[in-house]
Amino acid sequence: MSEHPVLQLIRCADEAIIAEDFDTLMELYAEDAMLVVRPGVVARGRGEIRRACERIAKHFDHSLVVRQAGMALLEAGDTALVLANTVISSAETPETVRHATYVFRREPSGRWLCIVDNSYGHAIIEA
Amino acid sequence: MSEHPVLQLIRCADEAIIAEDFDTLMELYAEDAMLVVRPGVVARGRGEIRRACERIAKHFDHSLVVRQAGMALLEAGDTALVLANTVISSAETPETVRHATYVFRREPSGRWLCIVDNSYGHAIIEA
Repeated sequence: MSEHPVLQLIRCADEAIIAEDFDTLMELYAEDAMLVVRPGVVARGRGEIRRACERIAKHFDHSLVVRQAGMALLEAGDTALVLANTVISSAETPETVRHATYVFRREPSGRWLCIVDNSYGHAIIEA
Repeated sequence: MSEHPVLQLIRCADEAIIAEDFDTLMELYAEDAMLVVRPGVVARGRGEIRRACERIAKHFDHSLVVRQAGMALLEAGDTALVLANTVISSAETPETVRHATYVFRREPSGRWLCIVDNSYGHAIIEA
């Protein structure tokens, strides 16, 4: 069974992040998407998301590595929710697992795009 | 600041579950919604979701209590992702916290409806 297109997009995004290929990365986001940059800080729209990704790459000294250690996908109508065990690391950062949550929307063209990107999962809930 | 309508709907759903008021509960789901009944088992559409909720109520001997111990909402376009620390208990079951994930969609009428209901969060990821 071939992998769901949304899971393929997430693997494509991981490769683009590692390669710092932000043109390819931005093609995976909806125009009105949001990204949780860190708990309490959000980027909205492709322009802000691109600048945030560039700052994140710099923050990790251009050595950020992202991979998925397990994903589950729940699709209903034109919406897909992905639960992922996302592993990040860098030259200076040991591997850390985040319980990430991603929402994708199927456009009228049939193409899926990321609408909500929250790699922090439940860690964004205020105490 | 008044609470986001989606968070109000979740509180309304909790009250309806406790009261076993399934008519009110079903009004909160989109026609094409999906519910994770338990890891690996999904109900699709209001008919199946209603029957699953009735079975769940019986399973907990009609004493199920649900409350939210913290929620965060991420809204982009007509999509809202909710991360919640959902506490469930019953006469025979001590309080258990689930890291729940809910996706709501805003209909053309402006009304928000639940499209993906996954109270198990990342627990559905296969080992």
